[in-house]
Amino acid sequence: MVNIIHRVGIKAPLQEVYDAVSTIEGIAGWWTEDTSGTSQVGKTIVVRFHSADGKEIGSMNMEVTGLEPGKKVSWKFTAGPEEWIGTEATFDLQQEGDYTIIIFGHRNWRDQVEFTAHCSMKWGIFMLSLKELVEKGKGRPSPNDIKIDNWN
Amino acid sequence: MVNIIHRVGIKAPLQEVYDAVSTIEGIAGWWTEDTSGTSQVGKTIVVRFHSADGKEIGSMNMEVTGLEPGKKVSWKFTAGPEEWIGTEATFDLQQEGDYTIIIFGHRNWRDQVEFTAHCSMKWGIFMLSLKELVEKGKGRPSPNDIKIDNWN
Repeated sequence: MVNIIHRVGIKAPLQEVYDAVSTIEGIAGWWTEDTSGTSQVGKTIVVRFHSADGKEIGSMNMEVTGLEPGKKVSWKFTAGPEEWIGTEATFDLQQEGDYTIIIFGHRNWRDQVEFTAHCSMKWGIFMLSLKELVEKGKGRPSPNDIKIDNWN
Repeated sequence: MVNIIHRVGIKAPLQEVYDAVSTIEGIAGWWTEDTSGTSQVGKTIVVRFHSADGKEIGSMNMEVTGLEPGKKVSWKFTAGPEEWIGTEATFDLQQEGDYTIIIFGHRNWRDQVEFTAHCSMKWGIFMLSLKELVEKGKGRPSPNDIKIDNWN
């Protein structure tokens, strides 16, 4: 199995970071503006991505598999790109001094393909967006995300 | 073995991207300003990192193990953080339309540790810096790199 794992530190209280990854409003502030559904264990969140001119270019459904306040958020992808289905994303949080540390994982990819490498880079961009949202009040969710290659 | 693999696309001719990853001047423009040594197969490149106030905070030596013009650059780390020694970095390049695509890999980490996750995120930041250097003429090499956590 192939795993993408990034470490980010956000200079903010743990609760603010937890809110940003565990609520629809929070996720819409750093990943994609078009985030809907219900962030409760067993329920589904839907994220849709659009191009600058408004065309939908992709979407994913994820089941919320864990919500441990101030500690961990877990998702399992149930619809979207074929390579994503069955993979899991987790945000493990801990306080270290002035920082809330996130260990973000997107695990259990079947194969290391070029799309995995694209997503690894793109998750880095969205972690930076999450950091900016919490530290500065404004992230760069899709469609205003930093583009990193010819795929997005 | 644990691998970090990122895909980046740079809107520039392949030769410009190759120059940025295969010459001392190029590397100093996106990774760290304090890059020295000789970029020739069998020779060693030294990269040193400094804090904003000039203190050295880390360094690595890498042996250049491959230089295939317009195609691939390979390094093997021979000194630096204990976890890095013996790991290998590669830049695989190919043209796709207006883009030069880089598959960047930092492979053969012994274990998935928190430092691996930090480096995965940090490599994303440096790939972004490389993209900015080639596309806009100015990267963000250390010590002006984007800080992503309490480690750097």
